[in-house]
Amino acid sequence: MSRVRVHNFSVSIDGFGTGEGQSLDAPFGHAGGRLHEWFFQTRTFQDMRGGAGGSAGVDDAVARTWNAGVGAEIMGRGKFGPQHGPWEDHGWSGWWGADPPFHTPVFVLTHHPRPSVEMAGGTTFHFIDASPQEALRQAREASGGLDVRIGGGPSTIRAFLAEDLIDHLHIVVVPIVLGRGTRLWDDLEGMEQRFHIESVTTPSGVTHMTFTRP
Amino acid sequence: MSRVRVHNFSVSIDGFGTGEGQSLDAPFGHAGGRLHEWFFQTRTFQDMRGGAGGSAGVDDAVARTWNAGVGAEIMGRGKFGPQHGPWEDHGWSGWWGADPPFHTPVFVLTHHPRPSVEMAGGTTFHFIDASPQEALRQAREASGGLDVRIGGGPSTIRAFLAEDLIDHLHIVVVPIVLGRGTRLWDDLEGMEQRFHIESVTTPSGVTHMTFTRP
Repeated sequence: MSRVRVHNFSVSIDGFGTGEGQSLDAPFGHAGGRLHEWFFQTRTFQDMRGGAGGSAGVDDAVARTWNAGVGAEIMGRGKFGPQHGPWEDHGWSGWWGADPPFHTPVFVLTHHPRPSVEMAGGTTFHFIDASPQEALRQAREASGGLDVRIGGGPSTIRAFLAEDLIDHLHIVVVPIVLGRGTRLWDDLEGMEQRFHIESVTTPSGVTHMTFTRP
Repeated sequence: MSRVRVHNFSVSIDGFGTGEGQSLDAPFGHAGGRLHEWFFQTRTFQDMRGGAGGSAGVDDAVARTWNAGVGAEIMGRGKFGPQHGPWEDHGWSGWWGADPPFHTPVFVLTHHPRPSVEMAGGTTFHFIDASPQEALRQAREASGGLDVRIGGGPSTIRAFLAEDLIDHLHIVVVPIVLGRGTRLWDDLEGMEQRFHIESVTTPSGVTHMTFTRP
């Protein structure tokens, strides 16, 4: 059976996976880039955006595992864009430009489905109004037998964790207190009992936690 | 100037410093002993309770710094006991038996002051209805020029952090999701900017974070 994986998902020490006040200029709201500075510094991130350089230590090694063996992604609407409610037009095709880094089918969870959007490089965005189970069924069908990544944001990951649908969870705890935004861990009391957990702090100051099935 | 220190304060990954439902049999409510298993295993803890054995690795080394140079402690009423409202009697003298491990004056914050209680071994409990600043003034006066420890619980530490009164903060992040209880980090947005932060995960699986003045 293909696995369901989460990678490189940052949270603040007070548990927020994104800040308050998302907008076109601030995908993570008032958090800005603070949750992802550790990632921006990695060679993995530079590779994704076609840049050069970047660190090649443990942050990079762990970050790099995000894509191998993944055949589809599921993301919440907030990861796709800042719009709410019915789509005013279909011009928006995500934050990532013409060639998004996914290169697979991507299922965007929304109560307002719209036609699929085929991008360069193999990424196709599908818009579905579906439960976690049904979204996962569709993503698995489209994944060619490979794993499915749950891409975020926090509400989406939380919904899949609540249904016990995640096999591999990589969380990066960043030592900042965001104070407001969307929490990852709410209503997940005792979830740690379902996983083997490993933590390591790297020189960038973040703590990588991996939750895997025992 | 003497410093104000917090040591060995455990929080869950969802940020709770204690569980829900404190009672005589459950000082940390539904959290039970789960926030402190790392500590129970240390030689420091065994020494405090007059036992033998225990680990002598990094958990123990960090835990052991809790007491040196401390001349007084301030604690919230919930750390002292499970009672609420006016004291029904003065029989309760804390969870620690006849010889508490503090061996200094201890100031218990409560809206219901009562006579001080002198215990064996140098611990005296004073009960004061005071702001963080006023409590700190009294504790400093009683500390003989040494440091003052803020002993918890989470609401008390949070109140002192909110007033920027803490110089050294040692937090232990335990990989469990408590789901309910009292949060440490609420209303402290941006507090990390006042500190130099260092994190390390130890083989017990917890992550020690130290926040010190730059």
